[in-house]
Amino acid sequence: LFCFRGFITVNHVRQESHLLIGLMSGTSADGIDAVAARISGSAPRLRIKLLAHTHTPFPPRLQRHILDVALHGTVSQICQLNFLLGEHFARAALALIRRAELDPKQIAAIASHGQTIHHLPAAKTPSTLQIGESAVIAERTGIRTIADFRVADMAAGGQGAPLVPFADWVLFTHPTWPRVIQNLGGIANLTFLPARAAAGDVIAFDTGPGNMVIDGLVRELTGGKELFDRNGRLACAGKVAPDLLSLMLAHPFLRKVPPKTTGREEFGDAFVHSVLKKARRLRLRAEDVVATATAFTAQSIADAFQKFVLPLARRNQSSQVQFILGGGGTKNPALRKMLQNRLRLERLWAHEDFGIKSTAKEALAFAVLAHATLRGEPSNLPSVTGARHPAILGKIVEPLLRL
Amino acid sequence: LFCFRGFITVNHVRQESHLLIGLMSGTSADGIDAVAARISGSAPRLRIKLLAHTHTPFPPRLQRHILDVALHGTVSQICQLNFLLGEHFARAALALIRRAELDPKQIAAIASHGQTIHHLPAAKTPSTLQIGESAVIAERTGIRTIADFRVADMAAGGQGAPLVPFADWVLFTHPTWPRVIQNLGGIANLTFLPARAAAGDVIAFDTGPGNMVIDGLVRELTGGKELFDRNGRLACAGKVAPDLLSLMLAHPFLRKVPPKTTGREEFGDAFVHSVLKKARRLRLRAEDVVATATAFTAQSIADAFQKFVLPLARRNQSSQVQFILGGGGTKNPALRKMLQNRLRLERLWAHEDFGIKSTAKEALAFAVLAHATLRGEPSNLPSVTGARHPAILGKIVEPLLRL
Repeated sequence: LFCFRGFITVNHVRQESHLLIGLMSGTSADGIDAVAARISGSAPRLRIKLLAHTHTPFPPRLQRHILDVALHGTVSQICQLNFLLGEHFARAALALIRRAELDPKQIAAIASHGQTIHHLPAAKTPSTLQIGESAVIAERTGIRTIADFRVADMAAGGQGAPLVPFADWVLFTHPTWPRVIQNLGGIANLTFLPARAAAGDVIAFDTGPGNMVIDGLVRELTGGKELFDRNGRLACAGKVAPDLLSLMLAHPFLRKVPPKTTGREEFGDAFVHSVLKKARRLRLRAEDVVATATAFTAQSIADAFQKFVLPLARRNQSSQVQFILGGGGTKNPALRKMLQNRLRLERLWAHEDFGIKSTAKEALAFAVLAHATLRGEPSNLPSVTGARHPAILGKIVEPLLRL
Repeated sequence: LFCFRGFITVNHVRQESHLLIGLMSGTSADGIDAVAARISGSAPRLRIKLLAHTHTPFPPRLQRHILDVALHGTVSQICQLNFLLGEHFARAALALIRRAELDPKQIAAIASHGQTIHHLPAAKTPSTLQIGESAVIAERTGIRTIADFRVADMAAGGQGAPLVPFADWVLFTHPTWPRVIQNLGGIANLTFLPARAAAGDVIAFDTGPGNMVIDGLVRELTGGKELFDRNGRLACAGKVAPDLLSLMLAHPFLRKVPPKTTGREEFGDAFVHSVLKKARRLRLRAEDVVATATAFTAQSIADAFQKFVLPLARRNQSSQVQFILGGGGTKNPALRKMLQNRLRLERLWAHEDFGIKSTAKEALAFAVLAHATLRGEPSNLPSVTGARHPAILGKIVEPLLRL
């Protein structure tokens, strides 16, 4: 049985907290992170409670298909994958709802980032393409679905990215401490939040590689047996080679002034192979190469912090910055230690120290963006994306109410 | 200056009539039809007033590019064309607003069908893809934009098409007359509206070719000098060849029971060439071939009407059906006359007899669908699309209010 939900009106969210689901699949297409959260208030004064988090890996064949389509898919493949991924996102949402024992009728909206298959902020026609049909998600779940968050920022002249700093701003801004939120994914990115930061004070940029160079070297040096430096074992056993390190630190990206973004084009296979070539000439052991790559990663982050963030923090009358790590790289103690030494900070914090599950943060971020959208409030940060003005992000799909 | 529109609430539309803009580009990608209309009420009891209509042709290069990308575009081309077409749709809307001297602040929403670049209702993953980024339209116009109307119906198990019969139902349903709305585009399609039709009573299907076969033959027979049979001149000068006609009428599509759809795959170049081959063997003159193709088109429509519609009309206790023509084929007097003879009807009506501009109807239809969406009401017709249930169509993009 179906009946009309009546008018599309979400006035009630002003008064009450409400339940949101966030869905995210990153560019590596390894699977879907799903969170349920209760959110109330107006940014940046939100109350956010994470209720549940699941990660549903994509079957390896689907992952390969997604990466293939992103590179050279046909129109028919894109058309079909959009609907197929909609089914996967819907299933991830339904599994989370069951697991967290939520009542679907209580959920104000599902926020789905989708799967980026192209992101071309510098193309002749700047554009971006996320797929995972939101109408399929709304149909299968019976829940209002908000998706396609990047396009409105890009239409307003922004890069359509990064969008997560809005959530960092909401989650981490402190009345007296300036804070850096440093994510160590494949690429490392940083959000700087001055104390009492207003939306326009937030700065975010990519510092360079996170795990990408270390992982790439480990893969090459072990002939593909190891995919990353588990527990920093290799880095700990090696010695940093100054010649190789200075070669790596000469990468022109590191000198660029933010806002800046980077990716596999600059720190992927080509860079890894040039490092290996130099390492062979220097007759370095595998451990030394990995130790040097880890030092390089730590140094590039510390340099970015000291060059681009500290001067702002000092203007903010504080050189005491809380440095908060997140992402897969936090599991590498060698990287953490080298980073701490180079940052000359007494303590490195983790997301978890603030009650925030780092692996859930991206999916949670899209729930936060959708909360703003439901309130008719913007949630891009023009100081971060370069947009000409704030924009309400996302497109709303309304399902029929099932009785 | 930008400020929040406040909550996304469109309650006011219940009380008042409101202004909508409809944007449509058909599969031939010849340009954008834009309409402005004032609409009030709940379907099927809508009050609709067409205020303005413009057709903006695409530059020939863009048209070729769209048709190319639809066939074998790369991911990057699709990604960029989506944003580029968003600009074109936005410009068409703004031109219409200027020309009709409308106040953008008074416009409740722009309804954009977009450009279909793939429609695969029978693929392994049934799916459809319309592009023309709605976030770009909302950004450039400052007006709420609703787009992507087909996906929700397909997510609910429908073909995602046809959607225009909903507008036919709203515009043409009569308390005592059963009506047929017959569109003569490249393909001919029919909507049957019993007297006092409820949503579930509407039937719609493709009857076969509209202008496609006639145009294709004229193009071949004149060596590309003529693209269609202007004023039915060739058909009027020729004689119908019974052998060729019966060959054409043997096409298996005509025997299929509705709902059914067809396209260029069945009545495009391959069919035209098989007709030409037979015509040459019969040593027919060009005029005779065109006359026969025109008779074939008329006969296929009349047959569909008599086989699939009249029995239903009789069950509806009426064999007096008003037959209302629309589309480019209405300009062909030979086709009109042959159709009238074969239908054995006293009169054929035109959309214009009911105050509806036939060339504006498709764009108007999407304004009608968006009106339902703003009210939280469904606007697919499951009896027509095959969907399992009614669905609210379209995705809503909310711009920031500009002050």
